[in-house]
Amino acid sequence: MTPKYGIFELALPGPKEGNPFLEVDLTARFSGDGREFKVSGFYDGEGVYKVRFSPEAEGEWRYVTACNVPELDGISGSFACGAAEEGSHGPVQVAERFHFAHADGTRFIPVGTTAYAWTSQDDETCEMTIDTLSKAPFNKIRMSPFPKHYLYNHNEPPCYPFEGGLRPGMTAEAAVEQAGADFASSVSPAYEFDFDRPNPAFWRRFEGYLERLGKIGIQADLILFHPYDRWGFSQMGRERSLNYLRYVVARLGAYSNIWWSMANEYDLFFTWTEEDWEACAAQVVKWDAANHLRSIHNCLKFYDHSRPWITHCSIQRIAYHSHAELTAQWREQYGKPVAVDEICYEGDIDCGWGNITAEEMVKRFWDVMTRGGYCTHGETYLRDDDLLWWAKGGELTGESPARIAFLRQIMEEAPGFVDPKEPPEWDVSWGYAGERFEEEGNIAFRGRGQVPYAQWMLCYFSFARPSFRIFNLPQGRKYRIDVIDTWNMTVTPVEGLHSGRTRVELPARPYMAVRFVAE
Amino acid sequence: MTPKYGIFELALPGPKEGNPFLEVDLTARFSGDGREFKVSGFYDGEGVYKVRFSPEAEGEWRYVTACNVPELDGISGSFACGAAEEGSHGPVQVAERFHFAHADGTRFIPVGTTAYAWTSQDDETCEMTIDTLSKAPFNKIRMSPFPKHYLYNHNEPPCYPFEGGLRPGMTAEAAVEQAGADFASSVSPAYEFDFDRPNPAFWRRFEGYLERLGKIGIQADLILFHPYDRWGFSQMGRERSLNYLRYVVARLGAYSNIWWSMANEYDLFFTWTEEDWEACAAQVVKWDAANHLRSIHNCLKFYDHSRPWITHCSIQRIAYHSHAELTAQWREQYGKPVAVDEICYEGDIDCGWGNITAEEMVKRFWDVMTRGGYCTHGETYLRDDDLLWWAKGGELTGESPARIAFLRQIMEEAPGFVDPKEPPEWDVSWGYAGERFEEEGNIAFRGRGQVPYAQWMLCYFSFARPSFRIFNLPQGRKYRIDVIDTWNMTVTPVEGLHSGRTRVELPARPYMAVRFVAE
Repeated sequence: MTPKYGIFELALPGPKEGNPFLEVDLTARFSGDGREFKVSGFYDGEGVYKVRFSPEAEGEWRYVTACNVPELDGISGSFACGAAEEGSHGPVQVAERFHFAHADGTRFIPVGTTAYAWTSQDDETCEMTIDTLSKAPFNKIRMSPFPKHYLYNHNEPPCYPFEGGLRPGMTAEAAVEQAGADFASSVSPAYEFDFDRPNPAFWRRFEGYLERLGKIGIQADLILFHPYDRWGFSQMGRERSLNYLRYVVARLGAYSNIWWSMANEYDLFFTWTEEDWEACAAQVVKWDAANHLRSIHNCLKFYDHSRPWITHCSIQRIAYHSHAELTAQWREQYGKPVAVDEICYEGDIDCGWGNITAEEMVKRFWDVMTRGGYCTHGETYLRDDDLLWWAKGGELTGESPARIAFLRQIMEEAPGFVDPKEPPEWDVSWGYAGERFEEEGNIAFRGRGQVPYAQWMLCYFSFARPSFRIFNLPQGRKYRIDVIDTWNMTVTPVEGLHSGRTRVELPARPYMAVRFVAE
Repeated sequence: MTPKYGIFELALPGPKEGNPFLEVDLTARFSGDGREFKVSGFYDGEGVYKVRFSPEAEGEWRYVTACNVPELDGISGSFACGAAEEGSHGPVQVAERFHFAHADGTRFIPVGTTAYAWTSQDDETCEMTIDTLSKAPFNKIRMSPFPKHYLYNHNEPPCYPFEGGLRPGMTAEAAVEQAGADFASSVSPAYEFDFDRPNPAFWRRFEGYLERLGKIGIQADLILFHPYDRWGFSQMGRERSLNYLRYVVARLGAYSNIWWSMANEYDLFFTWTEEDWEACAAQVVKWDAANHLRSIHNCLKFYDHSRPWITHCSIQRIAYHSHAELTAQWREQYGKPVAVDEICYEGDIDCGWGNITAEEMVKRFWDVMTRGGYCTHGETYLRDDDLLWWAKGGELTGESPARIAFLRQIMEEAPGFVDPKEPPEWDVSWGYAGERFEEEGNIAFRGRGQVPYAQWMLCYFSFARPSFRIFNLPQGRKYRIDVIDTWNMTVTPVEGLHSGRTRVELPARPYMAVRFVAE
């Protein structure tokens, strides 16, 4: 029996001759729970065609295929969908406008990391990555099926997403040299690929890793295209890109732990137009029965995140000095969840995007999350073996993940999604969760005016380091107060229950927070 | 003989009766060096009228008075102006559009601090302040003649700028309570002042301190009005404010070490209009023969710094998270020198403007100065004796002044004024000084395009902490390179002379800089 949110797979024998990828148009309709979904099948090689579907309701599901090849047309059947497996909550969707929850309603608080090309490394490294992730605080990873050509990323992947590879007599070293080893990459003529023929073996290996991620509770934020490419996968042309997308969605769309990211740094695809991106997004929408989350990530210029197909903002900070603190503003502007998916990485490489301290990385997480957004980690320490986590995975050696785990726990303990206090306070950020209390007063330090209080309030001081702070709590409520050291990961309760004007002593160190929980 | 940039003072007996401040309109014309200046005289009490003038050229100067009182009218004479005293370079003026120099051409690099009301403290504290300043790295101080009513500032000054004081039977404590001890201050009815009668004893004391500052090489950036006031000096009305300004300019304008700041936080004067400010500025311009520097400082909204009377931008950062890095942009916008005169203070008080770390304070100095601006320090450590440097002076206990001294030395060693590299680099700031070299290339890390190089180039990494960086030096020049630890105050030369692509090893700590000096 197929569990709810699991994968039902239909494997059908069919023609091997010609180009089955291009020439066989296989779809299927699944109906159950009073609803009907159309999905695409895909060719898995060796004369085998597959159709996958992930049921989101228990009970009987029926299907019928349609195909331009008679032997694959009109095949029908049914299967039973049982209870979801332990820990399986279904795909993540937008919840309460600015947040996320699984299909079964379970709150999902994304705590992301980045390893763009981890599946393009050898099996041993991939195993190391999975092992690292299984112990890390992250529940989402930004990653692409494609290999990466960039600084610290010049190795050849173990296999390719399409048939083909290096031309006879060519070496990977020559390809790297042709493509340019620095930022400026171009497609190398050392390769020859048949973009009309995806490589089923590649995709089976990739799916295996998706499944492994699912088992350790991690969402794969799948980057469908990226520009750091010497193989040509970013320059296949619109039609082949659409074919690739249909294939990928058909193969992977039934995995419940995936999100679609149309691109990493879409604006570095200098030959692509907005029309190309819109067409690609429409292709994903068309074939994705599960309606997974969709976004598109920028380099220097945001995509228009108000486009209807975009479910949440996947933001790379544009200004080097001003970003995390804009989270509430971006929420307001787009009316969607904000995932700050690139905000520099903990590390010590030469590039400004990859050499912030662990303290700064953790600060940015707090700055974003106390403003009602979500943040993504990455690690870029210079290593002799060139195994930088942000691209290749491997091991984490930084100091931020432990602190991010601590933050995740604090956010998960909140009685609901965390939204920013409105109006904001000029020098600290406030996250509010749970019930709102319309009491007279203003918690703002010596401020005026009236704003609501909340059952759960978290004040973050970031780089500031006061030795005390005065809070104006509501008169009619009693709060427990904790002083939180976000770097040293301690929670120190303030004695007693508190109402009205309350002075909280602080240790005059940066990175402190104060939590208020109403009795 | 009056030295150049010194003060020639004419003291004349005149009427005591009535209100000499209001009723006697005394001016004088000074001519010498082929030029003529008109200044205002002022009443110094006890029937004595004074006229002051600071000659900026050696030789004979002649004067003649004009007055509505016959005994003070038409008095003429002359005096000889000799060489400037050792270390006396004349008033500071704008130089090379974005910078400052003394009248004799000596480069002046402002390195400011803040002690708004230090002269409103008792004599002992004032002595302590002078002593502290004599050992500190600062050559400019933001200060007001007026006392201050604000957090950590509730004491009564030892004397008042106008005749009057507490009404009989009233106490300072009662006045503080009436005015409100927090942010929200209002004028207390506990006082009665005659705003038509400046208090000469007050101003003599104040001048004494200006002179002492001059002797230790410090420019007094005089804040003529500020809103933190329980005495009523910010609310005298336009006419009395203009009279006060004429009096102050007449008394103090001959001191070569003063700058005029029309206001601290002009936009918190809720009853003042822009017309009021313009009228006040015009009054200063009218009576200031020395044409001292003029600015006006904001709280939440910049004044229009493009107004012709404004010589330089005196900026309080508006956004809490984004400021120092805007320096080059502000220069561009206003075409004037940029003094970032409030950018939070090293300290640990409860307010966000007063609890940054010393590291952050020093970082902001470097962020501003490597972008061609100037920065102002302040210190706000909580103390049992309430003696917070930023307002009352006293002693400095913070860790930033030593580092600011180090920075000052580095900037003074530059072969000229420091301007930002154009175009800027996204992740680091670059200050350029000395000769520009139009060589092919771009120093920017792995960047493209062409920008000039300079004889002296200073790259600042701020919070980033790379373990190395590659610089593309011009092929046709040889540079000495120093790695500078701005926090630990070390300068470590890189061995050899360097051209072309050059990799510089760095210690993977924040707050590093690299200096390049062409042979």
